[in-house]
Amino acid sequence: MHEIQITVRFGETDALGHINNTSYFIYLEEARIRFFEAIGYQVDARDWNFILASTKCDFISQGYFNQQLIIKTSVSKIGSKSFHLDHEIICSQTSKLIAQGNAVMVCFDFEKQQSEPLPEVLLDKLKSHLVYS
Amino acid sequence: MHEIQITVRFGETDALGHINNTSYFIYLEEARIRFFEAIGYQVDARDWNFILASTKCDFISQGYFNQQLIIKTSVSKIGSKSFHLDHEIICSQTSKLIAQGNAVMVCFDFEKQQSEPLPEVLLDKLKSHLVYS
Amino acid sequence: MHEIQITVRFGETDALGHINNTSYFIYLEEARIRFFEAIGYQVDARDWNFILASTKCDFISQGYFNQQLIIKTSVSKIGSKSFHLDHEIICSQTSKLIAQGNAVMVCFDFEKQQSEPLPEVLLDKLKSHLVYS
Amino acid sequence: MHEIQITVRFGETDALGHINNTSYFIYLEEARIRFFEAIGYQVDARDWNFILASTKCDFISQGYFNQQLIIKTSVSKIGSKSFHLDHEIICSQTSKLIAQGNAVMVCFDFEKQQSEPLPEVLLDKLKSHLVYS
Repeated sequence: MHEIQITVRFGETDALGHINNTSYFIYLEEARIRFFEAIGYQVDARDWNFILASTKCDFISQGYFNQQLIIKTSVSKIGSKSFHLDHEIICSQTSKLIAQGNAVMVCFDFEKQQSEPLPEVLLDKLKSHLVYS
Repeated sequence: MHEIQITVRFGETDALGHINNTSYFIYLEEARIRFFEAIGYQVDARDWNFILASTKCDFISQGYFNQQLIIKTSVSKIGSKSFHLDHEIICSQTSKLIAQGNAVMVCFDFEKQQSEPLPEVLLDKLKSHLVYS
Repeated sequence: MHEIQITVRFGETDALGHINNTSYFIYLEEARIRFFEAIGYQVDARDWNFILASTKCDFISQGYFNQQLIIKTSVSKIGSKSFHLDHEIICSQTSKLIAQGNAVMVCFDFEKQQSEPLPEVLLDKLKSHLVYS
Repeated sequence: MHEIQITVRFGETDALGHINNTSYFIYLEEARIRFFEAIGYQVDARDWNFILASTKCDFISQGYFNQQLIIKTSVSKIGSKSFHLDHEIICSQTSKLIAQGNAVMVCFDFEKQQSEPLPEVLLDKLKSHLVYS
């Protein structure tokens, strides 16, 4: 399980007074990128071989400006060419679960424009973050 | 089925050269809001009784700056206190399916902070956009 | 003078109930890009030789969700390697001036990483949109 | 002089491979808000009496994904109902000046919808961050 912390920016709220739904996907992207870094993959536009095939977020409680949010990331499934990440977004001040998200990542060769098997070295790293639910 | 059209803005792309994943949720929100307007619900922060409980997007093909995207919205499920919207995002220049999304909307009393039954008038409107898949 | 129209998206507002200041710069970018198109320059990441050197926005009245905004763009100054664009953002429902912006664009050779003289053909186009203030 | 540090998010870049110009205004807003906190003003939508009257950013060098940016904020002018903030955005890895910004803040009574004199307590705080340029 990997963890980051962010503080909700003012521009990430909307006229309903809470965090706009689109902002949660900014947080999930940030969590994914830091997770990749933690397992040794530097996100670099010139040499990047993953695509986000799908992402989802369930909004459990409302989140607000200036809250500190902890975003936990774990691996929930490992396939031959793809893997699933699960996220929990928790308010660190109130310990409330704010949202749950997930992402399906596919290993992708941008030159050939096709998916490809997960490299051996990645598999090992992913397994160490695998959570059986 | 309800339909809107948007043009991809430059700031909605990212350093991979395509539309950033978070931007799709901007388009889905726009599609939802216009759908609500089309069925007679003006989105107004002072008198708004729906919450987005969950949203998801599957990224099928890459989308790019300046593409005109058609976002189709239909109702895929009607419950007692909630309903589901399905979206298709299609590039109008290439007719390619770019993404598929959905959203779960819950009827919500912000004062009591609890979900409530869908009003009769809304039910009728939703049924007219219901697609059996 | 060139003119575009946009409708304020919900996610472009913030918890103060109005348009977030950062969203205005989305509108100004959109206005610039459509202005460039109107004078025959397609914005294409692979062959783009302008940089935004500076941009500014004065917030005159508050703008709100769902307002239709007209963004007017004119050329206010033409230099040897740069030119200035002036923008007015007006609410089409109320005719109120919402904001005034400007942008300094520099002609730039991304390969050599240095500014370069404005091409002759651009000069003529810019002159036809020049407003003497 | 007040200082914050942020890390450039992937979604803040655009298809030109660098930070999109609109993202700089997200950083400037963040810097302003943290500056206000530092001088004892909690940004709270229900009790907030400042408006941003104008903001500007000069883009000096290109900024990129994952860079750590230091944003320095100082007070450059104090008027009777307004004050000016100056910002410098510096890449902490390269020490390069990336951008320079400023903001004009006006003390505002949202109920009466009119500007009002800066409160005495704020004046003292601002003076301690005043830089004579």
